[in-house]
Amino acid sequence: MTCAVFCIGTELTRGELVDTNGPWLAAALTDLGFEVTEKATVDDDRARIIATLKRLAGWARVIVCTGGLGPTTDDMTSDAVAEALGVPLERDEGSLDAIRRRFEKIGRTMSESNAKQADFPRGADVLANPIGTAPGFSVRIGEATALFMPGVPREMKRMFDEQVVPRIRPLAPNDSHQVRLRTFGLPESVVGERLAGIEETFAGVTIGYRAHFPEIEVKVLARARDEASAHSLCDAATLEVRKRLADVVYGDGDDTFAGVVGRALRSRGYTLAIAESCTGGLVGHMLTREPGASDFLLVDAVTYANSAKTQLLGVEEDVLRGHGAVSAEVAAAMAEGVRRVSGADLALSLTGVAGPTGGTEEKPVGTVFLAVASQKGTIVKHRLLASFGDRVMIQTLASYAGLQLVREACAG
Amino acid sequence: MTCAVFCIGTELTRGELVDTNGPWLAAALTDLGFEVTEKATVDDDRARIIATLKRLAGWARVIVCTGGLGPTTDDMTSDAVAEALGVPLERDEGSLDAIRRRFEKIGRTMSESNAKQADFPRGADVLANPIGTAPGFSVRIGEATALFMPGVPREMKRMFDEQVVPRIRPLAPNDSHQVRLRTFGLPESVVGERLAGIEETFAGVTIGYRAHFPEIEVKVLARARDEASAHSLCDAATLEVRKRLADVVYGDGDDTFAGVVGRALRSRGYTLAIAESCTGGLVGHMLTREPGASDFLLVDAVTYANSAKTQLLGVEEDVLRGHGAVSAEVAAAMAEGVRRVSGADLALSLTGVAGPTGGTEEKPVGTVFLAVASQKGTIVKHRLLASFGDRVMIQTLASYAGLQLVREACAG
Repeated sequence: MTCAVFCIGTELTRGELVDTNGPWLAAALTDLGFEVTEKATVDDDRARIIATLKRLAGWARVIVCTGGLGPTTDDMTSDAVAEALGVPLERDEGSLDAIRRRFEKIGRTMSESNAKQADFPRGADVLANPIGTAPGFSVRIGEATALFMPGVPREMKRMFDEQVVPRIRPLAPNDSHQVRLRTFGLPESVVGERLAGIEETFAGVTIGYRAHFPEIEVKVLARARDEASAHSLCDAATLEVRKRLADVVYGDGDDTFAGVVGRALRSRGYTLAIAESCTGGLVGHMLTREPGASDFLLVDAVTYANSAKTQLLGVEEDVLRGHGAVSAEVAAAMAEGVRRVSGADLALSLTGVAGPTGGTEEKPVGTVFLAVASQKGTIVKHRLLASFGDRVMIQTLASYAGLQLVREACAG
Repeated sequence: MTCAVFCIGTELTRGELVDTNGPWLAAALTDLGFEVTEKATVDDDRARIIATLKRLAGWARVIVCTGGLGPTTDDMTSDAVAEALGVPLERDEGSLDAIRRRFEKIGRTMSESNAKQADFPRGADVLANPIGTAPGFSVRIGEATALFMPGVPREMKRMFDEQVVPRIRPLAPNDSHQVRLRTFGLPESVVGERLAGIEETFAGVTIGYRAHFPEIEVKVLARARDEASAHSLCDAATLEVRKRLADVVYGDGDDTFAGVVGRALRSRGYTLAIAESCTGGLVGHMLTREPGASDFLLVDAVTYANSAKTQLLGVEEDVLRGHGAVSAEVAAAMAEGVRRVSGADLALSLTGVAGPTGGTEEKPVGTVFLAVASQKGTIVKHRLLASFGDRVMIQTLASYAGLQLVREACAG
């Protein structure tokens, strides 16, 4: 069942506002089982609103619209819909009363401009707005059901849940199931090659990819004759995807890499200490943006200056002078130092050149040394990361590499 | 000069990704003087890509497109454009070489799927991508110039600035000038109230707002009979805006708050040490994502556990027990402790309850104590932040509040 989302507003076409209604509606409609194939956004222009509505009604069974229901002169959605349908606007006395009562409740008098918010195309089905002045409405345009809601996100979401969903749920097909797998460690092209042929093997399955540096999300969508069949088709294909990607898949759904690493630490009962340099606090930030990091994280010593490495972590000045701050020796000394001062079970350290300056021939921008210290000893890794990347990409990739070492230490 | 933005990707129509490219492009095109009247978004479907392109080419003079240039099978933009134009795809050997060299540089072999990223509709003008594998391209469709870029935001933005702007600027009307001011410290509604009446006083000026939590960007756009007049009109209005907002304006253009604070530290020749708790490394991350932080930052001790506050910063256990980790006394001891161990000129500390759990009646979620220690003594501030906010919002707001204290300490 194809479906369109239609957002109306000059603030959107001029980029003054990042549209969050559109993605929210697209996700909600997809979850209901609709196939959203287009999101249209036009400015507050009567002719363009009419033309777009007529065009979308040519193929979509459901059109969900937001915006242009306010009291000002640039709000002209109701008017445009009436013109598109060739019907007059009619005042709905019930809605007018509701708007008037809303103003009385907050001790104000309704202004005449608000009265037009009670005007709807003749025959429209009014959608109540319990938390704002603009009611919505629903009309049929040809074969399509078109539903109009205000653009204020919290009013729109409530109206969608309470008024729109009951009206469109009966139209939604119930024939798909999707699993999202989260991966880190391979570029998109290699992930794609590893999964080549899956769509042919599992008819009805579509594999989608979404890159969010440095992760690749793999989406396994199955469509079948009913929901149960789609579910088992999806499960079978997902099993094959997991087999081919092995431990490149770190989680699914809304898992985050830091969250999975935190879970691994928690399940082993390990405490963690970190000593960062080039990543400047990013590893700590990634772990602590998830709730519950205090279960395992004792300290993250971002020892940016050499003096701090010595003062806080006890890295010897001779070692810093002899090998340089970006070296296997200093990485090891940082990890061991922060483990000693904190008493943590595991300690991770990172030292490198994030750029754009500071690179040398021997240690170019992107060079990172990482170490993990535990009672078993200290492991040091050398990486040359993303020579194409900018500073923040190198910091991000280094932080992921560090968390990956912690994950491995928990598994080992 | 009317213009359309066209975003391609099933992840967008399904709402899996909030589209930031569309608003960014809409704002950039508006800044160049174009009138953007539609943003179209369709899924990775060949027929819909073709139909939408043809439709947009019917009225838009410039069509700026993103997405669908990746190496996987669901990336089909080039293919669809070729079909829309009725021309074959042709491999561009120069682009193929560039892609191959990119892989060699990072020590890997180009996979066959990446080769298709060097295929363009015959006659296309190739747009180089210096930081990714997918080049873009430009074609004429009827009266329209259509430009295609990858969907990865940082690749898209660079390609737009370097390749697209030079090609489309000659098509833009040359009668406007815009200044972007960056503010922190007031909500959008209050910023709006302070600037009420500016558009009436300065005819031809439009004030726009863009909220990017916790900042509000204020755009002053002036249109006049020619560029020079627009420039002076914009300057006059900007002066008035700055006067009304005073030091809520921290910078302009592409300034960042952390970058401005870093500049202030550098200009005073101050070194900085930080002790974080609830913000978990975010302050350090904000400062170090900007190049050159090593000029002033000595250390950021993220002392998450109480034991770390004692071991690394010398916060006395009695103080922690007596007042709790989230207290004015502990904030002061953390700032003084990290200043002592690092020898920094200035020290900032933050301790608070980021939530979602851990709040009490006395210290609810959002409670933060901040301290700045210097040779002049220690200043402690108490804040109750964004009780409506989630964990990351509270961490972000607390980090901004901390950087603001450092900025004030540099000014004082």
